Amino acid sequence: MAHSDPLASAAVEGRLCEEFAMPSHVEEVKKLMAAFAGQHGAAGRRVVLITSGGTKVPLESRTVRFLDNFSSGRRGASSAEHFLDAGYAVIFLHRHRSLYPYTRRYAGVNLLDSLSFEQGGEGAERVLVDQQQLPGIAAVLRRYQAVKATGLLLPVEFSTLSEYLHLLKASAQALSSIGSHAMFYLAAAVSDFYIPASEMPEHKIQSSNGPLQISMKMVPKMLSPLVKNWAPKAFVISFKLETDSSILLERARRALATYKHQAVVANVLDTRRGYVAVVTEDSRHELVLTDEEAQKGVEIEEKIICNLAAAHTQFMSQHA
Amino acid sequence: MAHSDPLASAAVEGRLCEEFAMPSHVEEVKKLMAAFAGQHGAAGRRVVLITSGGTKVPLESRTVRFLDNFSSGRRGASSAEHFLDAGYAVIFLHRHRSLYPYTRRYAGVNLLDSLSFEQGGEGAERVLVDQQQLPGIAAVLRRYQAVKATGLLLPVEFSTLSEYLHLLKASAQALSSIGSHAMFYLAAAVSDFYIPASEMPEHKIQSSNGPLQISMKMVPKMLSPLVKNWAPKAFVISFKLETDSSILLERARRALATYKHQAVVANVLDTRRGYVAVVTEDSRHELVLTDEEAQKGVEIEEKIICNLAAAHTQFMSQHA
Repeated sequence: MAHSDPLASAAVEGRLCEEFAMPSHVEEVKKLMAAFAGQHGAAGRRVVLITSGGTKVPLESRTVRFLDNFSSGRRGASSAEHFLDAGYAVIFLHRHRSLYPYTRRYAGVNLLDSLSFEQGGEGAERVLVDQQQLPGIAAVLRRYQAVKATGLLLPVEFSTLSEYLHLLKASAQALSSIGSHAMFYLAAAVSDFYIPASEMPEHKIQSSNGPLQISMKMVPKMLSPLVKNWAPKAFVISFKLETDSSILLERARRALATYKHQAVVANVLDTRRGYVAVVTEDSRHELVLTDEEAQKGVEIEEKIICNLAAAHTQFMSQHA
Repeated sequence: MAHSDPLASAAVEGRLCEEFAMPSHVEEVKKLMAAFAGQHGAAGRRVVLITSGGTKVPLESRTVRFLDNFSSGRRGASSAEHFLDAGYAVIFLHRHRSLYPYTRRYAGVNLLDSLSFEQGGEGAERVLVDQQQLPGIAAVLRRYQAVKATGLLLPVEFSTLSEYLHLLKASAQALSSIGSHAMFYLAAAVSDFYIPASEMPEHKIQSSNGPLQISMKMVPKMLSPLVKNWAPKAFVISFKLETDSSILLERARRALATYKHQAVVANVLDTRRGYVAVVTEDSRHELVLTDEEAQKGVEIEEKIICNLAAAHTQFMSQHA
């Protein structure tokens, strides 16, 4: 039966409809994304869809417990800034409360520790930002306001795996109109496993019932219908994060052979901020951040986006 | 064998040492908490330890995936403010990145949307807070700064279940010196299940290996040694959150009978911001927030803390 093959794109689409409830706001968000893509595509601008952050997989339908993936969303948020710098329009499909472009730089700071009352201010009391507490805030704020004014950043939020999957499909369909001008940069840490709604208990699992046995199904691989059906002309990049570097490259090549997309950004958990390999069917670029660069505040995402934007240019010319 | 009884406090202590690695910073944090308790206890002040937020339970030792509990930390953070208002010194043992007293009011706000450059400012560029974007910020900042100046709030962070369990034990021992002046307000959403380090795979679980079977052990109930051994003179409140209201009260009474502590704050997920029952061995106070109060910005935590502070007074007089 089709369901037994997680790669057959028809089977994947079937499972998406049958096993993952469609959130009510997806159609509305799809219209927003289509309008965004149409507007920027018409202006000859490229549009990248970035997915960022981890997904929640509920263990109960009225959810108290859930399975989560480690992801702060740092890579996605940083990459969004560099894509904007490279002239892309960006749809930022991110996990609710994960790191956000520009604000990410101050994620660890307690807002109230960085504010002070104006000394000797007249009239209405004014609250000032202590720029020692928020280094570079003036420059970051200026850049943030400029991006906002140009309307080049469209944020879309998800929390659960279901929301992510349906919004990814909607975004792919929304971007199909601009063909090879669209890039998919799938940096989100998506769960490989889930519990079908039909097998989920309604109420909080009682610990008094003893040890917990959780049986999780494999999540259908969306990359398959995305590449084959939803956005066949787009430039698609997936990510591979492993903790075991010895299997990394083989996994990346296997993914390319399986899904026939354009590139895999392969990285190892412990070194992901200093090293990645951009792997394509016939090439492998190793990108390394030197200690000197790191000290200067250079981010490896700048090198990743530089590499991928060039590859995207070539891809577009081949598919013109 | 002792391990088979999750309630025997000796067994619990044994399992804590054997099955949950002690984080390296616990001893240092314990000294801080003991000094904090000693200082405020000597001043005749009561000290409450608040636990807040959910716990992470790793599924791999180099963690990519983890089991989490739903908890924003809103109740704990709000309660901390009301305990401070009631004159308590507060140790806020909270999940990293969960809601924090005072700053919690602006958790949903994008910092950069609430800042602006000073118009026509001379000299160095100044960044101002837009008080429309951060309602009440001046009052909140003033209160936050006052609390900070008095040193009545000691924040301590955890992320994983192991960190939480070891820090809870350390805090109980640190507060034992002030006897009945100590209150434990255990609002954190602690996982009931975990995977022993010995049974955990080192590397990221490969989805290519097929469906995932997770077998989780029950977490030892720390309330047992906390009440019996670590802080036998303290006033201890636990929380019960259920999604099924029909079993709530029975669970609360069962917990009191089992652990012999002073009170259970019982609440239902859907109504937790408008209704709680404070259940003791011989009483049951239902606290309700009216719509009118909610509109005025009154929080149910104010009523909870008012109720518990009074009960704590009575408890202290009985144990003087």
